[in-house]
Amino acid sequence: MSIDSAGTVVTQFFTFAEEEPFGLESGESLGPVTLAYETYGTLNSDRSNGILVCHALSGSAHAAGWLDGDPDKPGWWEDCIGPGKAFDTDRFFVLCSNVIGSCYGSTGPASIDPKTGKPYGLNFPVVTVGDMVRAQVRLLNHLGIDRLLCVAGGSMGGMQVLEWAAHHPTRTRAAIPIATTAHHSPMLIAFSEVGRQAIYADPAWHQGAYYDQTQKPDAGLALARMIGHITYLSEESMQLKFGRRLQGIEKYGYEFETEFEVESYLKYNGLKFTRRFDANSYLYVTKAMDYFDLKQPTGSLAATFAGAADLKFLVISFTSDWLYPSYHSKQLVSALTAANVDVTYLDVKSSWGHDAFLLEVETMTHLLGSFLDRLVREEQIAVPAPLGRSQRGGSTPLQSTRLADNLA
Amino acid sequence: MSIDSAGTVVTQFFTFAEEEPFGLESGESLGPVTLAYETYGTLNSDRSNGILVCHALSGSAHAAGWLDGDPDKPGWWEDCIGPGKAFDTDRFFVLCSNVIGSCYGSTGPASIDPKTGKPYGLNFPVVTVGDMVRAQVRLLNHLGIDRLLCVAGGSMGGMQVLEWAAHHPTRTRAAIPIATTAHHSPMLIAFSEVGRQAIYADPAWHQGAYYDQTQKPDAGLALARMIGHITYLSEESMQLKFGRRLQGIEKYGYEFETEFEVESYLKYNGLKFTRRFDANSYLYVTKAMDYFDLKQPTGSLAATFAGAADLKFLVISFTSDWLYPSYHSKQLVSALTAANVDVTYLDVKSSWGHDAFLLEVETMTHLLGSFLDRLVREEQIAVPAPLGRSQRGGSTPLQSTRLADNLA
Repeated sequence: MSIDSAGTVVTQFFTFAEEEPFGLESGESLGPVTLAYETYGTLNSDRSNGILVCHALSGSAHAAGWLDGDPDKPGWWEDCIGPGKAFDTDRFFVLCSNVIGSCYGSTGPASIDPKTGKPYGLNFPVVTVGDMVRAQVRLLNHLGIDRLLCVAGGSMGGMQVLEWAAHHPTRTRAAIPIATTAHHSPMLIAFSEVGRQAIYADPAWHQGAYYDQTQKPDAGLALARMIGHITYLSEESMQLKFGRRLQGIEKYGYEFETEFEVESYLKYNGLKFTRRFDANSYLYVTKAMDYFDLKQPTGSLAATFAGAADLKFLVISFTSDWLYPSYHSKQLVSALTAANVDVTYLDVKSSWGHDAFLLEVETMTHLLGSFLDRLVREEQIAVPAPLGRSQRGGSTPLQSTRLADNLA
Repeated sequence: MSIDSAGTVVTQFFTFAEEEPFGLESGESLGPVTLAYETYGTLNSDRSNGILVCHALSGSAHAAGWLDGDPDKPGWWEDCIGPGKAFDTDRFFVLCSNVIGSCYGSTGPASIDPKTGKPYGLNFPVVTVGDMVRAQVRLLNHLGIDRLLCVAGGSMGGMQVLEWAAHHPTRTRAAIPIATTAHHSPMLIAFSEVGRQAIYADPAWHQGAYYDQTQKPDAGLALARMIGHITYLSEESMQLKFGRRLQGIEKYGYEFETEFEVESYLKYNGLKFTRRFDANSYLYVTKAMDYFDLKQPTGSLAATFAGAADLKFLVISFTSDWLYPSYHSKQLVSALTAANVDVTYLDVKSSWGHDAFLLEVETMTHLLGSFLDRLVREEQIAVPAPLGRSQRGGSTPLQSTRLADNLA
């Protein structure tokens, strides 16, 4: 086993609201509710070293390690979670759960509706980021964790982080929202809606009742994913990654086939996505994101964070992220500062667009590591001291030059 | 008639290649070829005051005035073409023609294939921006214009402008490429391809052979347009225009209906587009844009413009245009400078994204007007002196303060 990996992991399941349904923001209720989750590392004796990591739109509870021992199934944040990594599993108890509405083991539209014995489909109630987080609160209660060391996540994961800080501030000491926003913008809503329209327009969608059909709304879902995929990159990263290179041909074919590398890449990724994601979940999870607006109900973001004054924040944005532009993070930082919150903010210079939060590994390792070290010290958390890379016999040390270049 | 309008206009038609087919870059040929075109103003005696205006992806030959006398049918660049406007029809002979491959009267996939007596559909050959421009050259020959005063256009219109300058430099004295690029970027190709995939995925598309069907691939075309529409705006302009406002409801409905204004706007515009545009033309015109790369065949943009040293250029980009980012225009300016071309460049500060070239009317009027005045003076073009606004009894004078603010 690589010393860098959290090693073999298994997905666990926690079911609640079996007797009394779980009330949702919409006024609807849901029950029973199952959450798929994974944990890495060991909870310390006073249960103070828990870190909740929240996933983005298409993520799962499998954030790190090798699922069922298969090294070909690394976690989605493998680069940052593991022994000696940013979220050091030698020191912290890291936890990730699949959001409700998704399709990786937590209750969602593909789950069986106990009322009918069939998959919910569109009978699944619309859930919000608030609902997702309140389900995570139940999981923490179940695990006996009163207060997390921190909650961290990027994109929709970052929205969950902000929801924790705003509405459950006593349950965590720190919050790390990355490449995110406190209120989903009209451009984000627009891209979400176009993705949903692509799914609605697929005749195989059948108003969401396709689970017993041979054909699934794969064409619509692939299209939605292709649109999304473009938005996660940047103009610059696409120039670097693809340029105008042709795929498998020497010159233009003057026909409507896949000709450019970038077309091929998008089609491949769109198709691959249909093998792992459920079209209805795409609708529900994007809708939850669209509803996300922590300015409400007062209209003041500072007021929303009034109860979070005891928290420490690390806010990170990326200069080339045009989907969640840096100014959203700056607005958040202003609001937090106005609410007297201890906040560290970094606008990381990167050409990778929104995806940077998963790709700028060295920078993220440095930023997250420093922040967590400070947190452990100031909050007097009982965790082992970090092992140096040399003691671990580990991989390439951090290159401080590149780090410095990357920090705007 | 408003003194600002070019007044009643009619679309005219010019047909060529009736005997000998028109050769295309692909090696295929096309014939007969019809170009729909409109003209505004009067050609002077030495035929030196002609300005060719080139339209973008979904535009037509109807650039100004009231089509068939109907004031509800203004031209697509109405704000900039007319008496006393930037392209002053009291002074210049302004001309616009619909590109081949499009669907506004010029030969395209919906036209009748003389070989079969049926619409071409996908039997229409793939055309390039180079082909579009060579068809325009034929129109100029037909009109007896040896040398234009200038060629101007934004977006795909700007690509045509660059094509004129690169490959027909003796036919124009000046070039005004706006919000464009000399080589379509991978991000542009990606958005094009996703739009095309939306059309392909529509079962009503029938491999392009839908012209005799009751149902057209409207869902796919609407989706393609919605995607495009987002890219023409900016994050900031969408915040200003829509914010997170709901449409016709007080609070979230917790259902998959159109709820946000921005969703409603996109759906409305997607639907509206299907009433005026042909899905196959969308495929052909976007493909032509994707193929556009003036760096080829040498790999050097400066080499491409080697023959354009006698031209005067006005290059304009917009700071919030993330689809055709300013750095593309800057690369173009560098290449032109290296090729010893007289070039004026302005990166206009605007929050309107790519659409700015149609929306920043005062700035555009100022920039285009000054450039054309200089051109008339330096090239000694015999045109009437401009009438002052007061002599015209015209509308609001230019606000120089706002102009200054808008110039980056």
